[in-house]
Amino acid sequence: MKVSELGEFGLIDLLARMVSSSPGSHVSRQQLIIGIGDDATAWHGDASTQLATVDSFIQDVHFSLDTASWEELGWKALAVNMSDIAAMGGMATYALVSLALPDHTEVEDVTAMYRGMVELAQQFGVVIAGGDTSSAPLVAITITVLGNTRNRDTHILTRSGAEPGEKVAVTSYLGTAAAGLEMLTEKLLLDSEAATCLRKAFLRPYPRITEGQLLVEQGVKTAIDISDGLISDLKHICQLSQVGARIEVDRLPIEPMVRANFGDKSLALALSGGEDYELLFTGSAQTIDKVKTAVSCLVTVIGEIIAGETGKVTLVDSKGNPFYLQKVGWEHFTTR
Amino acid sequence: MKVSELGEFGLIDLLARMVSSSPGSHVSRQQLIIGIGDDATAWHGDASTQLATVDSFIQDVHFSLDTASWEELGWKALAVNMSDIAAMGGMATYALVSLALPDHTEVEDVTAMYRGMVELAQQFGVVIAGGDTSSAPLVAITITVLGNTRNRDTHILTRSGAEPGEKVAVTSYLGTAAAGLEMLTEKLLLDSEAATCLRKAFLRPYPRITEGQLLVEQGVKTAIDISDGLISDLKHICQLSQVGARIEVDRLPIEPMVRANFGDKSLALALSGGEDYELLFTGSAQTIDKVKTAVSCLVTVIGEIIAGETGKVTLVDSKGNPFYLQKVGWEHFTTR
Repeated sequence: MKVSELGEFGLIDLLARMVSSSPGSHVSRQQLIIGIGDDATAWHGDASTQLATVDSFIQDVHFSLDTASWEELGWKALAVNMSDIAAMGGMATYALVSLALPDHTEVEDVTAMYRGMVELAQQFGVVIAGGDTSSAPLVAITITVLGNTRNRDTHILTRSGAEPGEKVAVTSYLGTAAAGLEMLTEKLLLDSEAATCLRKAFLRPYPRITEGQLLVEQGVKTAIDISDGLISDLKHICQLSQVGARIEVDRLPIEPMVRANFGDKSLALALSGGEDYELLFTGSAQTIDKVKTAVSCLVTVIGEIIAGETGKVTLVDSKGNPFYLQKVGWEHFTTR
Repeated sequence: MKVSELGEFGLIDLLARMVSSSPGSHVSRQQLIIGIGDDATAWHGDASTQLATVDSFIQDVHFSLDTASWEELGWKALAVNMSDIAAMGGMATYALVSLALPDHTEVEDVTAMYRGMVELAQQFGVVIAGGDTSSAPLVAITITVLGNTRNRDTHILTRSGAEPGEKVAVTSYLGTAAAGLEMLTEKLLLDSEAATCLRKAFLRPYPRITEGQLLVEQGVKTAIDISDGLISDLKHICQLSQVGARIEVDRLPIEPMVRANFGDKSLALALSGGEDYELLFTGSAQTIDKVKTAVSCLVTVIGEIIAGETGKVTLVDSKGNPFYLQKVGWEHFTTR
């Protein structure tokens, strides 16, 4: 069987099973809290829970040099990894950068990429502390970000704690990054304010490190960052928490600028576009009210966790009737 | 300027300067012991020094599927990273695996690769605790290995502590891996015992995790693992320690099997072949005698650290006369 037939998540499941059946040292295994399958790996440190995550960012798979500048590339490659630490409710501390570059790459392009990376790292006090470089036929940036919780008693945000009756909420807006990607690939001509905003959403996503820690402080237990798309990422929470979820599509927070430029399609972008790197989380209505007060960005309740078919995400309109994405002209909708 | 003109080490220097001029958080920066430029990153943890390293292993750059099986690939990709932890004198604890694979890759090849990885991980109690998978036009395996020292007072092995008068020593044999690579790429027909030994040296290197910790216990301060080749890696120590070194070529430990099959060329393989992943270290004659007693593998003194031209490695014969590699038919010798 080919990897493409098994699919990304099938492959991860298979490898996770191989790995979990191996013993490891008594100490490392005993200290491990979260292995493969959440946003980041977590284990008990001496003074706090330790976090680590890694993601590869590969040319013409995850990015294109036709649409992204090298500086944006550096920012985004680091941001998507810091976002995984944010989704665990942790602080990011160190980053290791493994860089594969074609020999003909211009040195000034590489330094521009590092400028983007360093700019983001500085905003969150992350130290780029190591890595390696290699020659390769294409650009691949693999970044490892390490982090930790504030102290040993601080809990982490996992994907497996959602309970029926909890509300589902999200930070800021959804679909803005996907709108940015569409604008860049389709070469849409938008007014300059919209073009700048959408480009930034797609190429300079802001990791919700501060918000993730505030969620923890307000008692949230369950979160994920939206990388694959709202529905797909909510399904991850539902599968690991063994619950379902109902989303009211009319409640989805969509940037007015996206709505103005993409009309009905905005909803599909918000539901399945991905790469917004906003935090999707669950909690009681009371907890979410506390979160709204604590964080400075918009927080919107978009649905609730329900008992029933594990892993199923149901879409409803404002009257509670089933909502079908085909209505908004999204025929080949994929939930991956 | 192109990356190829600047060279790998030039690029690393440039990026390290960009990164070190960025502030980072007060805490992370203050806790950092070793940033870019040693075998691994090191920082103060609460109960021990923490270590992290990452290396990419890219198809047709670092390995070829024509010569390596998938299982060997998994072993080696992990081994080269564990070797960096060994060169710091630490224990390896967790590994994160970022895997880029073409869609047409057979799932059984990927599981074979994981078998190789898990086999090595088990021998050292390392837990494969996370990672990600992506689609890519070629196979790229980027592994992050985390580790730590035994306790807070245990020192680490760095590249910067060598002092004039110290002896230079190495674990086990040199050039065996390079002989294995030559056998595989040139399709040399050797007897089956030699073929097995050389293949194993090149494709299943054994990280010197145990030996690294014993070096620390015996008082060694300075070490590196031999990945680029003896001369090249000794130059790294010399540059960072601001010393020179003199190597007596007749003392180099070369497997009898390599000498028998490669004759005079063995010496060039031992001096510059690389990928042996043995530990190259310095210490007083007394310290090295203690190391010889403590470790179970061969330890050979091959030269000494000298004052004088920083970074210069001089080769001499048994009479102390200058030795030129051209003598052994190695015209285009590169010290990278």
